[in-house]
Amino acid sequence: MNDSYLPPLNDLRFVLDDVLDYGRLFSLPAFEHADVELADVVLAESARFAAGVLAPLNATGDEQGSRLENGRVVTPPGFRDAYWHYVEAGWPGLDMPQEFGGQALPVTLQAACAEMVNGACVAFGMLPLMERAATRLLVAHAPKGLVDVVAPSLATGRWGATICISEAQAGSDVGRIATRAERQSDGGYCVTGTKIFITYGDQDFTEQIIHMVLARIPGSPPGTRGLSLFLVPARALQANGTPGASNGVTVTRVEHKMGLKASPTCVVNFDGAQAYLVGQENAGLKAMFTMVNTMRLEVAMQGVAVAGAATAKALRYALERPQGGRADAPAVAIVEHADVRRMLYLMRARTEAMRALVLEAALQLDLAQAGPEAPRADALALAEWLLPVCKACGSDAGFEVANLAVQVFGGHGYVADAGVEQYVRDSRVMSIYEGANGIQALDLVMRKLPQDNGKRYSLFAARIRADLDRNSGCAELREIRDAVVDGLLRLDACTDAIAQRVANVSRDAEAGASAYLALVGLVAGGWMWLRMAAAASGDSPLHEVKRALARFYAEYLMPEALTLQRRALLGAASLDTLDAETLTGGR
Amino acid sequence: MNDSYLPPLNDLRFVLDDVLDYGRLFSLPAFEHADVELADVVLAESARFAAGVLAPLNATGDEQGSRLENGRVVTPPGFRDAYWHYVEAGWPGLDMPQEFGGQALPVTLQAACAEMVNGACVAFGMLPLMERAATRLLVAHAPKGLVDVVAPSLATGRWGATICISEAQAGSDVGRIATRAERQSDGGYCVTGTKIFITYGDQDFTEQIIHMVLARIPGSPPGTRGLSLFLVPARALQANGTPGASNGVTVTRVEHKMGLKASPTCVVNFDGAQAYLVGQENAGLKAMFTMVNTMRLEVAMQGVAVAGAATAKALRYALERPQGGRADAPAVAIVEHADVRRMLYLMRARTEAMRALVLEAALQLDLAQAGPEAPRADALALAEWLLPVCKACGSDAGFEVANLAVQVFGGHGYVADAGVEQYVRDSRVMSIYEGANGIQALDLVMRKLPQDNGKRYSLFAARIRADLDRNSGCAELREIRDAVVDGLLRLDACTDAIAQRVANVSRDAEAGASAYLALVGLVAGGWMWLRMAAAASGDSPLHEVKRALARFYAEYLMPEALTLQRRALLGAASLDTLDAETLTGGR
Repeated sequence: MNDSYLPPLNDLRFVLDDVLDYGRLFSLPAFEHADVELADVVLAESARFAAGVLAPLNATGDEQGSRLENGRVVTPPGFRDAYWHYVEAGWPGLDMPQEFGGQALPVTLQAACAEMVNGACVAFGMLPLMERAATRLLVAHAPKGLVDVVAPSLATGRWGATICISEAQAGSDVGRIATRAERQSDGGYCVTGTKIFITYGDQDFTEQIIHMVLARIPGSPPGTRGLSLFLVPARALQANGTPGASNGVTVTRVEHKMGLKASPTCVVNFDGAQAYLVGQENAGLKAMFTMVNTMRLEVAMQGVAVAGAATAKALRYALERPQGGRADAPAVAIVEHADVRRMLYLMRARTEAMRALVLEAALQLDLAQAGPEAPRADALALAEWLLPVCKACGSDAGFEVANLAVQVFGGHGYVADAGVEQYVRDSRVMSIYEGANGIQALDLVMRKLPQDNGKRYSLFAARIRADLDRNSGCAELREIRDAVVDGLLRLDACTDAIAQRVANVSRDAEAGASAYLALVGLVAGGWMWLRMAAAASGDSPLHEVKRALARFYAEYLMPEALTLQRRALLGAASLDTLDAETLTGGR
Repeated sequence: MNDSYLPPLNDLRFVLDDVLDYGRLFSLPAFEHADVELADVVLAESARFAAGVLAPLNATGDEQGSRLENGRVVTPPGFRDAYWHYVEAGWPGLDMPQEFGGQALPVTLQAACAEMVNGACVAFGMLPLMERAATRLLVAHAPKGLVDVVAPSLATGRWGATICISEAQAGSDVGRIATRAERQSDGGYCVTGTKIFITYGDQDFTEQIIHMVLARIPGSPPGTRGLSLFLVPARALQANGTPGASNGVTVTRVEHKMGLKASPTCVVNFDGAQAYLVGQENAGLKAMFTMVNTMRLEVAMQGVAVAGAATAKALRYALERPQGGRADAPAVAIVEHADVRRMLYLMRARTEAMRALVLEAALQLDLAQAGPEAPRADALALAEWLLPVCKACGSDAGFEVANLAVQVFGGHGYVADAGVEQYVRDSRVMSIYEGANGIQALDLVMRKLPQDNGKRYSLFAARIRADLDRNSGCAELREIRDAVVDGLLRLDACTDAIAQRVANVSRDAEAGASAYLALVGLVAGGWMWLRMAAAASGDSPLHEVKRALARFYAEYLMPEALTLQRRALLGAASLDTLDAETLTGGR
């Protein structure tokens, strides 16, 4: 049981086809080389690959972990073969440009496939993610000569990649990065410093690893405005593109983590490593933002992936596990107990809301990039609004749902064999990495909300209102519609109040930021359920489930808005009653 | 850092002395051999032992775990020595009868010490817990001859003990236990069957282990009414009390768990093992209930313990970790950031509410046992009401707060070195074992609430109202007092509705049981904060903190009542919309 994975193909198809109508993407010039039938084949193949090749690695990867041996990372048995299988099947380049060997398919399709890859083995999925993010960075900002040498190998997964940001003294506070990049007489650069928490900082899959490194050129301004972005190859780049001599990049440590053990989290040391500037000097952080959307979307999908995988196992267990009922009769399946049902409904309702929301965000990214010219700005604004919400709520949902799966399994869930406790451990980091969820909340409240006179929120609320209007007559949708109406009113009120605070007493806005983000995510989830229920008007069991879950979301989950609203408006006063020493000290 | 433990001595003293006035226990005949000064020495010694002897074992115990070797359990290095140190210092018998070598001190004091033992190393604390529970069982139900042979060794920790309930097909559904107990011609019994999830089912500390086993005598009625309780020694009991030959009890497996790895969770096989009936035939489950209060109280305290330990580490880290602030100035400590403060306040407010509540429940147990005759029944009724609430909310708080600690540490928290991710893994099982939290909710709603015409709830609410009346004039207490008034009104309304459902449509009551329990816990926590704030009228930093946390509990935590009230009253209709196959199947 612990190495099985049931890809949620039908649920994905329902969202993509019936809720989002993503087929329209294939009439756009950027995607007209494909069509919805091809996309469905890709989806089905991804499911087969995830379940057949990746899922069997998940438990053993966790058990054995990646480790450091003689200065090199050794990954668990089977990972290297699976990786090359993945590369040869062309998966790394799914949404990468065709000129670099990619297939230029929509981000939306890539996101759906990413759910299945990560649902089967999230530790595996980390490396392709870094490769996609690095390719995007290079294509957007690197000189053409460099792109031509690197991108074809990176976009197709023949080379690995890392994103090197954190240092011991610079976590969320990126501006304190101290890694130095010295200009050389030949116009190149030379990077020296130590980066921590580097995912797949080394591996035994590829002959070359491209590190994308934030560093500081001596004499640059302090803070984030003095950071530059560099490409640092693990082995020197030769003119013909083949990897040359070792380039002063060494892994000195692989962290012993709570989960994601097969994904090596490394301390990477750069010692005068040959480096190529990407973008302008001191514009490194801005360049890095190119990959932020890719990363946030993927982490959100990792959360959905773990939630979906955990839910599938819990549903099967609940149907098969007899326990309880009359003493003189055979035990009933635990799915019949009200409290178990409550957990299963909750798991499905939360997971499927987030799945739809993340795919909606992906669709907006596609439309912003390749959609009809006029609405592109709106699509981008909506995507930018949704992404911190997806990242934070998706990661939180992954952890919450994984924990509920353990609870459904009871004592058996606490034991490794059931394969559910790993989901809890693997998903725990998702609310931390790629911008901790508290940072996402600040991004939403302090940047996304006030910029452009609140345009992004207005757009978001207007989309929801349009869907409320569109479905105002349908009795079947009453519960979810009423709940979204109520939630949106509360959210409107919160948004006004928070926006004023951002302008006036920003610490009050900061104090409520996490709750505000959670409220946005909750209402957005309700919006998704309204759309899913509206699309599920048929008699099939799938449609019946969607309508039932929409009602449950309305009745059980939407009341969280009552608490979140109060918390979002709490303000800093009750957090600033104590000085730091009194709050923490004398202990 | 990861093997440090800061015992919350001052916080414990504040609750015991200033809030609960537990000194009054020592004027009772049962405890007049002690006094509050002695108790305070015990408390301080327990803190020293926990921090000095147990805390250094916590991380290595987790790393190395207990394992099975040649049919015997091998515990991690250092555990055996620490155990005998614990025994020789007299800790196992703290609240055990003096006639068996115990010290007959209050359960309240034992509970306070248990926080520190479990805060330092919860995997260690499991074995003494089993010994105390088994001793209580025997003293209450076993024949005097048997008690005289076993209790002196058990109560002092010279022998180990286990509680053997679960079987593969009988988890929460205890009535399906199939282990057989055959009557022998000599009047004894012979037990055959396989028990799972047996904590310290074997260990390398003691020469004898006493298993308390629920089994079924052939011909007994089905279900829980056909269960009998047996004492099964690992080695035969000789007349002189020394352990004799091996008794057909073998450990066949030690589970590979998410956490609590030093505490061996065993599959124990009984193969015609010599057994002694404890209590009457077919009255085993009722006898077993004697230990339920001991177990629930301790698991609740385990949750508080982990929450307290995690909070202490997070507070220190937040004060010492510089990150953020103006780029041209040194970084500020993260304790200054609003969202970090929100987490720290939340951790403290939740932890300290539960600490006070669990100690209040312990005090009521002492009063029920040893208090003035007239109010004993009320004390018992209040304790019985509080215990499922403490068990569920205490375990949930442990996990919630441990997770917040990881979040405060950020990426560093996900790495083992910081010593906080272990708290998440260790505490995850607390909401499952000793009666899953869903079972606690059913106990509260389906038994504790309706029995005696709702006497227990009335008593609980009356105590809260008395404290509200007592503190009605104080402006400093306004926030917490208003919040408790509001919470109690909501709880009253829920209670009436749920009580009617129990009588009429019990499935509707079951559907809301978990939320109802959480609401009781939330309001009870508010009650504790009202009392703590009222007791904290001085100028000391400790008192200042208590008043600030009471306000935070009122403003940030009490609004959870809004959501919980809606959920408690949801009813089964929205959970029973789908049949089992449609909900779970076709997947």
